[in-house]
Amino acid sequence: MTSDHASVVSLNLFVALLCACIILGHLLEENRWINESITALLIGLFTGVFILLTTGGKSSHILLFSEDLFFIYLLPPIIFNAGFQVKKKQFFRNFITIMLFGAVGTLISFCIISLGAIHFFQKLDIGSLKIGDYLAIGAIFSATDSVCTLQVLNQDETPLLYSLVFGEGVVNDATSVVLFKAIQNFDLSHIDLNTALQLIGNFLYLFIASTVLGVFAGLLSAYIIKKLYFGKLIRHSTDREVALMVLMAYLSYMLSELFSLSAILTVFFCGIVMSHYTWHNVTESSRVTTKHVFATMSFIAEIFIFLYVGMDALDIEKWRFVSQSPRKSIGVSSLLLALILVGRAAFVFPLSFLSNLLKKSQSEKIELKQQVTIWWAGLMRGAVSIALAYNQFTRLGHTKLRENAIMITSTITVVLFSTLVFGLMTKPLVRLLLPSSKHVVSLPTPPSTPKSFTVPLLGSGEDSWANGGTHNGPPPSTLMMLLSCIPTRGVHHYWRKFDDSVMRPVFGGRGFVPYVPGSPLEQSVHQWHCT
Amino acid sequence: MTSDHASVVSLNLFVALLCACIILGHLLEENRWINESITALLIGLFTGVFILLTTGGKSSHILLFSEDLFFIYLLPPIIFNAGFQVKKKQFFRNFITIMLFGAVGTLISFCIISLGAIHFFQKLDIGSLKIGDYLAIGAIFSATDSVCTLQVLNQDETPLLYSLVFGEGVVNDATSVVLFKAIQNFDLSHIDLNTALQLIGNFLYLFIASTVLGVFAGLLSAYIIKKLYFGKLIRHSTDREVALMVLMAYLSYMLSELFSLSAILTVFFCGIVMSHYTWHNVTESSRVTTKHVFATMSFIAEIFIFLYVGMDALDIEKWRFVSQSPRKSIGVSSLLLALILVGRAAFVFPLSFLSNLLKKSQSEKIELKQQVTIWWAGLMRGAVSIALAYNQFTRLGHTKLRENAIMITSTITVVLFSTLVFGLMTKPLVRLLLPSSKHVVSLPTPPSTPKSFTVPLLGSGEDSWANGGTHNGPPPSTLMMLLSCIPTRGVHHYWRKFDDSVMRPVFGGRGFVPYVPGSPLEQSVHQWHCT
Repeated sequence: MTSDHASVVSLNLFVALLCACIILGHLLEENRWINESITALLIGLFTGVFILLTTGGKSSHILLFSEDLFFIYLLPPIIFNAGFQVKKKQFFRNFITIMLFGAVGTLISFCIISLGAIHFFQKLDIGSLKIGDYLAIGAIFSATDSVCTLQVLNQDETPLLYSLVFGEGVVNDATSVVLFKAIQNFDLSHIDLNTALQLIGNFLYLFIASTVLGVFAGLLSAYIIKKLYFGKLIRHSTDREVALMVLMAYLSYMLSELFSLSAILTVFFCGIVMSHYTWHNVTESSRVTTKHVFATMSFIAEIFIFLYVGMDALDIEKWRFVSQSPRKSIGVSSLLLALILVGRAAFVFPLSFLSNLLKKSQSEKIELKQQVTIWWAGLMRGAVSIALAYNQFTRLGHTKLRENAIMITSTITVVLFSTLVFGLMTKPLVRLLLPSSKHVVSLPTPPSTPKSFTVPLLGSGEDSWANGGTHNGPPPSTLMMLLSCIPTRGVHHYWRKFDDSVMRPVFGGRGFVPYVPGSPLEQSVHQWHCT
Repeated sequence: MTSDHASVVSLNLFVALLCACIILGHLLEENRWINESITALLIGLFTGVFILLTTGGKSSHILLFSEDLFFIYLLPPIIFNAGFQVKKKQFFRNFITIMLFGAVGTLISFCIISLGAIHFFQKLDIGSLKIGDYLAIGAIFSATDSVCTLQVLNQDETPLLYSLVFGEGVVNDATSVVLFKAIQNFDLSHIDLNTALQLIGNFLYLFIASTVLGVFAGLLSAYIIKKLYFGKLIRHSTDREVALMVLMAYLSYMLSELFSLSAILTVFFCGIVMSHYTWHNVTESSRVTTKHVFATMSFIAEIFIFLYVGMDALDIEKWRFVSQSPRKSIGVSSLLLALILVGRAAFVFPLSFLSNLLKKSQSEKIELKQQVTIWWAGLMRGAVSIALAYNQFTRLGHTKLRENAIMITSTITVVLFSTLVFGLMTKPLVRLLLPSSKHVVSLPTPPSTPKSFTVPLLGSGEDSWANGGTHNGPPPSTLMMLLSCIPTRGVHHYWRKFDDSVMRPVFGGRGFVPYVPGSPLEQSVHQWHCT
């Protein structure tokens, strides 16, 4: 029935490989070294080799890496889920530190990598790169991929660290893409103060406009679902609610693309607002469903990307130039890896010091071991780097120019090396640095499994800026939390008041929707207003 | 970031329209006439007019109707969900009647429409259609679309009728597509007994092989998930389970496409097996999630199709030939509608009579009013007809030939007319014929809303061939059911034994997975072994 037999074959192979990755990832869960991303990358590489051999060296991939596929279909669910599942309490409590790392840190890293590239690449003689290319290289290699580390870190044992790495990862993705766009929007043949100011202005505009659009889309979805109140109808109500949430989240992403804003930021904030308001306006089954749907979509997209990158890496054509001058390519890749290591160290340790100065309580300070973990977590480079590199260096013909071909292969080399070598060392390293430490404030597990749905200590930190206690009275750690959050009372306190008196009556949210029996999440409402 | 601005615009518009359809559909829920499909079709038509006016008559659609999109992405979730949510007890109890209507009935309808077309079209002089074309027309217009009626029928008030219309719809879809494929596979320039036998043989092969593949894929997924038992791990277990179920269901569909089988049948039986075995092997939250994910995907796909058909219907180019000979086109469309009415009446009433002869209990006989409803339910033609017509009549150049253009526009006319006119009359007609009748055996609501998750009378008929009682002792209707199912004890009884002693220990399923606290679905295990 379908027109193209080849596309059916490749879809079959791809779906089968995805299944294999999930099953293998599960079986290797207890393994010391491997995690899900590395499994997918390795399976992708092996499949690439296999296809290369069966097709007689003609091709190694069944699907060409397409920027559109990545930015329109794979990235939105990942970033939206990040916003939807983020522990908002932790995220907003550490907001300043996260923005320091994610935005300022990425800018520092960008500057170091760009300047380093300008300085050293000219000695290597790899062709005529323009100033715009050097700045793009800075942006490309500032985009971290902290999935590997997040898979190892335990959100309950080290909530501060997890929230910092997680938050930095999302803000970093957005910052590097916004930076990349801002660079492409300008004619950088002659840089003066005016251009630089415009660049900064453009960056800030993209940042703010994207956030506003995301918040608006989230609030709109909350308002619509609250007004219509689908729950009162039996038939299709859950389908409608889930469909509307998914579609409106996607709409926010696409609208942002349409207005040339940063879709990543938009969908991230849309996710945060949806989990704070919209999620509480829907029926219990819609809540369970959306929670897992978003997580599953993100999970599949992540595996898909690693599989894809692994398979695409072996494309013969790209490596032709490399085989002519292997030393030069190795030089460029090593240099870039060195710049990444230095560029990240150059902001993690100083900014941690700065952040520690701002915090008064000991539990919120970032210890040296944690600083090393944060530094390590951001060393991996992933699909965002590859997508940006493709965008920058394949626009003028498919890697026909030597310098473009070298940059593409170097990006792939850096991504593969950092994900495989650094990624494999992550599990042992994190276990060495943080031996199942219980010294940080412990938060209960989020309700992501049926088990936790029966545990009374539930959902805290998961769906409110303001929350943190339980039904059964505060355990010691909650008391500690209560003490530690007094200093930051200011802004949060007023936000709470505003949220309760203005926002929630209009947009719904926890405590402002009818009580549904059997919903354990409703039990801890208005118990502790700490933050 | 994305290469194609136009595609971003159209994606935005489409997603926004989908949201509008869902919201409007909800608001019009109480309306006497309108239902969700008609809303989507009308919104599609209005958008088509709007685009037509703004582009100055150049184009009416933002996406061209693509067979691939329909058969690879939109149809699988709809059919899979049909299999997954089907009340298996009702489905298998009425299996013979459903197969009579769905397979035999479709064949009768196919013969009448084909013969009628051969007989009358030659008088209309619409060009040189070959014998293969006439047979294809028979298959195209035998594909019913009972969505409109199913949206009106109440599954709890008229379970027999609902199950017949629903079951016939799915089997009919599969039969007409298989028939269409079988016709295309043969050189029909000279028909003799040999060709006819081969055609029947091909049809049976497609039917059986597709079913076996679907059952195999479903059992494989059950076995894998049971063996791995994801539930024991906290992290990602639900994501993994949901992802595996979605991916394996899709894989079964694509594999069937790869082997040139009937993917519709495969994915339907995969859905049935998955809900009988796999669904019981996963965690409680995975169960809630998958149930609603599949329903939501199907819901979105359905709306998408109607929106799409509405928008595509106004494509100017197709109507050029019609404007040259409007009478001829109206003649063809009217003729086809008449053939549809006759072709359906020719099997619904005789086959109902036959089915009533086979049934002994009064409650299982199909009354005349119900026969009329069944007849009416299958008068609408939908996206399957359009997709098949496109496949048959646009292969040799895009509607350049006059007879092809006339057939395409006639298909669109028949689909629009039947969906809008017949569709609008469905709600009043069903209410007139079946005034909220409670005289048929009543089954409790399926657990599609949070409310029903707290009701003790739960999930019966939903997830087992063998089930029908509750925790609290049988209410009168259950007793009646118990009596009425004794005659059909034979085959079902042995299947039950086989299922309990061989299948469930290997593949899991209800009662063969560890008891999860808080799962109400586990409570009624092994209480009543009636069917």
